[in-house]
Amino acid sequence: MCQLLGMNCNVPTDICFSFEGFSARGGRTDDHADGWGIAFFEGRGCRTFMDQKSSTTSPVADLVKRYPIKSTHVIAHIRKATQGAIALENCHPFQRELWGRYWVFAHNGNLEGDLQALRTYPTDRYQPVGQTDSEQAFCLILEKLRHHFPDRKPALGDLYPVLQDITATLATFGTFNYLFSDGDSFFAHCSTNLHYIVRQAPFAAAHLVDEDLTVDFSELTTPSDRVAVIATLPLTDNEAWTKIQPGELLAFRDGVLI
Amino acid sequence: MCQLLGMNCNVPTDICFSFEGFSARGGRTDDHADGWGIAFFEGRGCRTFMDQKSSTTSPVADLVKRYPIKSTHVIAHIRKATQGAIALENCHPFQRELWGRYWVFAHNGNLEGDLQALRTYPTDRYQPVGQTDSEQAFCLILEKLRHHFPDRKPALGDLYPVLQDITATLATFGTFNYLFSDGDSFFAHCSTNLHYIVRQAPFAAAHLVDEDLTVDFSELTTPSDRVAVIATLPLTDNEAWTKIQPGELLAFRDGVLI
Repeated sequence: MCQLLGMNCNVPTDICFSFEGFSARGGRTDDHADGWGIAFFEGRGCRTFMDQKSSTTSPVADLVKRYPIKSTHVIAHIRKATQGAIALENCHPFQRELWGRYWVFAHNGNLEGDLQALRTYPTDRYQPVGQTDSEQAFCLILEKLRHHFPDRKPALGDLYPVLQDITATLATFGTFNYLFSDGDSFFAHCSTNLHYIVRQAPFAAAHLVDEDLTVDFSELTTPSDRVAVIATLPLTDNEAWTKIQPGELLAFRDGVLI
Repeated sequence: MCQLLGMNCNVPTDICFSFEGFSARGGRTDDHADGWGIAFFEGRGCRTFMDQKSSTTSPVADLVKRYPIKSTHVIAHIRKATQGAIALENCHPFQRELWGRYWVFAHNGNLEGDLQALRTYPTDRYQPVGQTDSEQAFCLILEKLRHHFPDRKPALGDLYPVLQDITATLATFGTFNYLFSDGDSFFAHCSTNLHYIVRQAPFAAAHLVDEDLTVDFSELTTPSDRVAVIATLPLTDNEAWTKIQPGELLAFRDGVLI
C-alpha cells in the first residue's frame, strides 16, 4: 500500500508544511519507503519531482521541503510497493496528456485481476510504461474519458458520471483510493482511507502528527485564501479532518468541495 | 533561440560536469535565461526537472548540479523565448508516451507558419499543452510515428526514414535543431548548430568553456565506458568536437554514432 497527499487552493500556495509531515511517513514515522513523487501544476504547466529512494533520504525530497513552489493543484505519493519493482517508472504520480492538458494520477491500494480485459476500445492510445496496477488503471480512465469525449474536455457535470462509472468498475478489482487532476479539475476517490480538511478564515495554528512542528496559518494567509488538503490519514492532530466515505468520488475547485 | 545538451552512454553516467558549464549559459555566460529543463532516463522511467527561472538562479538547477543522477539518456535545454510566454508549460524538454515508452524532446530554433496544416490524421492524439512551435513539432513527430507504426516501436531501420521524413518537412518551417529520445533510441537533428563528442578510453582531462573547471575523466571511468555528449556549442575548449552537418539526423546508441 501507499499514502496519498493532495492540495487544491484558490490561490497558489506552497505545500512545504504538509509535505514535511507526509514525507516523514516514507521511512521514519511509517514504512512507505519504496519511492515517492509529487506533481505541481503551475498554470497549464506541470512538473513532477520523484525518486525511487525513500522520501526521508531523497535529496529531491529535501529540495521540495526547502523550495516553496506555489501551486493550486498538487498531488503527492509515497510508495510501499505491491505490484511492480522499486524503480522510477513505477513511482507515482503518473502523467499523460489528454485534450491538450496534462493529467496526473496517484493511487493508494491494490488492484488484482485482468485489468487489460477492460481495454475494449480499438483505438487504445494510453499504454503503461511501468508494471503497476495503478498506471494501468490510470490509462484505462483516460481511455474511457477520451472515448466518451474525443475532442475536448467536457463540463464537469458531463465528465463526472463517466469518471464515476469507470472508477466503480476499477474498484471491483480491489482497493482504489486515488487523486486525479489536470490543474483545473481535482478529483479524490475513496475506497477505504482518504481524509480532507478545508482551511479558510479564520485561520488557526496547525500541528503535525509526524513532526513536532506547528504553523500558524493566520500569519501566512489573507482572509480570502482557501486550501483543501486531502490525505490518506490526517496530517495534523489539532484540526478536524473529514473522512471521505467508501465509494465517494469528490471534486474540488478553488479549495472547496463542489 | 535556445541551447541543447544531450548525453548518451553505454553505462549510467552523471552529467554534472557538462551541466555545470551548460547551465552557466542560462544568464551568466550567455542569455538563455527564460527557463530550463533536463530529462533523465533511468531504465524505462524518466524524470524531468524544470523551472521557468533561469538555470543560473533556479534552486532546482542547483540540485541537478549537486545530485549525481546516473543515466544513459539525458536531454537538457535552456530557453530564450521566441514563441510562447515564459511559463512552465513552455519549458523543454517535453514528454509524451508512445508505444508504452516515454519520449522526450527539446528544440533549438524557431518554426514559423501553419504547422497545424500538417495535422492530416483524423485520429490525432497528441495535443500541445503550451504555446510553443517546439511542442507542436514534437506532437506532429509522434503523430506521424504512431500513424506509421500504430502498435509497437519498429526496428531503428524502419523508424529512421519516417522520422527523417517528418523532420525534413518540419525543417522547411525554420530552424529545427533537436534532441529526441525514449531512453533506448537517441536522435539528434542539426539544422544550423549542433556538435558532439564521443569520450572513450584512453580518457583525458576536459576543461569547460563556461567555467574554469577541469575534470580528469581517466580518474572517473573504466576502460569500457563510452559517452557521447551533444551540445549546441562545444562545452569544452581542449577537446575536438564534431560539428553535425545541416540536415543530418544522427542516431546514437551506447555512446556511439550508429
